[in-house]
Amino acid sequence: MNSNYILNGLPEREVKPRDRGFTMAMDKGLSIREVEDFLEVAGEYVDIVKLGWATSYVVPNLQKKLDVYRAAGIPVYFGGTLFEAFIARNQFDDYRRVLDKYNMTFAEVSDGSIEMNHEKKCGYIQTLAEQVTVLSEVGSKDAEKIIPPYMWIRLMKAELEAGAWKVIGEAREGGNVGLFRSTGEVRSGLVEEILTQVPFEKILWEAPQKAQQVWFIKLLGANVNLGNIAPNEVIPLETIRLGLRGDTFNHFINNGQPIIDA
Amino acid sequence: MNSNYILNGLPEREVKPRDRGFTMAMDKGLSIREVEDFLEVAGEYVDIVKLGWATSYVVPNLQKKLDVYRAAGIPVYFGGTLFEAFIARNQFDDYRRVLDKYNMTFAEVSDGSIEMNHEKKCGYIQTLAEQVTVLSEVGSKDAEKIIPPYMWIRLMKAELEAGAWKVIGEAREGGNVGLFRSTGEVRSGLVEEILTQVPFEKILWEAPQKAQQVWFIKLLGANVNLGNIAPNEVIPLETIRLGLRGDTFNHFINNGQPIIDA
Amino acid sequence: MNSNYILNGLPEREVKPRDRGFTMAMDKGLSIREVEDFLEVAGEYVDIVKLGWATSYVVPNLQKKLDVYRAAGIPVYFGGTLFEAFIARNQFDDYRRVLDKYNMTFAEVSDGSIEMNHEKKCGYIQTLAEQVTVLSEVGSKDAEKIIPPYMWIRLMKAELEAGAWKVIGEAREGGNVGLFRSTGEVRSGLVEEILTQVPFEKILWEAPQKAQQVWFIKLLGANVNLGNIAPNEVIPLETIRLGLRGDTFNHFINNGQPIIDA
Repeated sequence: MNSNYILNGLPEREVKPRDRGFTMAMDKGLSIREVEDFLEVAGEYVDIVKLGWATSYVVPNLQKKLDVYRAAGIPVYFGGTLFEAFIARNQFDDYRRVLDKYNMTFAEVSDGSIEMNHEKKCGYIQTLAEQVTVLSEVGSKDAEKIIPPYMWIRLMKAELEAGAWKVIGEAREGGNVGLFRSTGEVRSGLVEEILTQVPFEKILWEAPQKAQQVWFIKLLGANVNLGNIAPNEVIPLETIRLGLRGDTFNHFINNGQPIIDA
Repeated sequence: MNSNYILNGLPEREVKPRDRGFTMAMDKGLSIREVEDFLEVAGEYVDIVKLGWATSYVVPNLQKKLDVYRAAGIPVYFGGTLFEAFIARNQFDDYRRVLDKYNMTFAEVSDGSIEMNHEKKCGYIQTLAEQVTVLSEVGSKDAEKIIPPYMWIRLMKAELEAGAWKVIGEAREGGNVGLFRSTGEVRSGLVEEILTQVPFEKILWEAPQKAQQVWFIKLLGANVNLGNIAPNEVIPLETIRLGLRGDTFNHFINNGQPIIDA
Repeated sequence: MNSNYILNGLPEREVKPRDRGFTMAMDKGLSIREVEDFLEVAGEYVDIVKLGWATSYVVPNLQKKLDVYRAAGIPVYFGGTLFEAFIARNQFDDYRRVLDKYNMTFAEVSDGSIEMNHEKKCGYIQTLAEQVTVLSEVGSKDAEKIIPPYMWIRLMKAELEAGAWKVIGEAREGGNVGLFRSTGEVRSGLVEEILTQVPFEKILWEAPQKAQQVWFIKLLGANVNLGNIAPNEVIPLETIRLGLRGDTFNHFINNGQPIIDA
């Protein structure tokens, strides 16, 4: 952990390679220099990068970008929508070849845009887990499709058993579906019920909005896994984890009681 | 069209130089390196760049920036508010000299901030069309000024007849006036009525918000002309055009029916 | 003032070094190249930079970043939350040493996250004023804590008397507390009452949202001091100050009456 000066009593942060408290950032079309800039500033704090949905199809700098992340030791994976785009076209084998072509070591399996038989989804997870480390995602991108908590739990458990390394709680780039209401408010009962059954380090919560990050950190501490973080929000997130921004300032010291300097 | 791998059955996209399906991006003060980065990533997908409103007055890198865009073959024009700033000061001839000084090949004529007699507006279009390619804009920046659909149509037709290359539907950077309600919601009846009378390739719809872009693409297809796109949203927009983001995923395949992988 | 062409009758802008009309920008984790890009574009228009809250604790490029700003002649200070983080841990002397270690010439004293006896706050201002130029901030980061206008005035006056160079009206990065309602709307009665008692050039208004900037500029003119401006919004703000964006277009010419070109 970097430290330009000493502040006493900060929460302990896991260091890399982290299994807890890791940050997944979303690259939705950065240039090579922008990737370098991002890594200069946040390389220490970001654990894995997602190339958002199927942006990898259109960006002209894909191979070079993967090289830059790789040189920095930060794994990259294609957004789940790309997996679904191949499935929807009956091109699963092509997808596996694309993963090989680009030497991908991680992949996401999701069903946010298509309806997928869950055994079939677990089959994809199992097959891909022989090739790469799999993150699987639960939750629809459709705000109308509300999955009840017991079902989230059942799906997450089955996907972990099928070989997923971690399961992702869906939120999109906007933070307004899946784990969240359309206003961005956390479905807190859902999250709490999931946590009674699924180990917290196995879950990666998509939480693009600041209020969502704050909510998870207050509930689960500095070392909760958070994802869909915009590149320029990784530093702000790190300060929230450490209680160094107003939102969590009082959470990590003085037993969470207001600080009074009288 | 770039393509890092093959996905079957994507909608056909026009290629440059495009008359349909083109993307206008808004530069509201990028540095030279930021312009280079933008072009590295999105140069293939952006057709024309607007220097937002009168930002060109204050940026210190104007000439150099124009040179970089020009070298990439991407035309640039000053936002309509600059035209209006000259008109409001009775400096139309000065404006024409500014266009020459910077070798501009495109210009916008608008009346979003001032009240302009429409014959006079068409006169400006006619005069400028002898010097440059003219985009003319319809719609007020004032959320209180609602122009009824028949009047939008009358204005657009007259401006095209006066020599405008395309007409722009106003939305501002925020996407909350003109074509849109203050909430950002599309005035869909207005758009549909306009399209009964004005050819769709002659219209450039300002649509800075994602939901607005999605709405136009669902109504008019991958090759609708969209503008006021933030530089870092050109790649995301391209994926929406291609049905490679959740929002339009089901629109372009399977006849728009949900994909079921059972 | 830069000027790529001549527009008549623009409001007069103060030039550097400005005591009125200055712009404070917030850097919440820029890379070195991003700082350079920011200064290329906006160096002429930005007067002082705040390293947001305690981001300086986690960024790995702190010393180098300070060097770049220094070379451009732009003073930098740490956000008030960092001061409070040291106070909350009873490390005020450590904070003073940090200011020396990094050769800081400005510092902020605030009590947005902790409750602080006001005499004690003024004591910190007095002590730090012997070491650096002090900005002190009034207003809580807690949306629930509403300070009545007479109290804002009393606090501001006392802090200026204690040695603060300017007082800051709190708004956060989001612009939704302190001077503003949770919707972002200005507490206009509060601002007007403050201005009956505190000289306008002694106040720096945090106003991160465009509508807030517009409100202050319409009330107080082109040369109001505004802060918490995102780096890429400094150019847009400058155009709003000059009446070169739709929002203030009619404010600075024609005695604020609509321009009619008939």
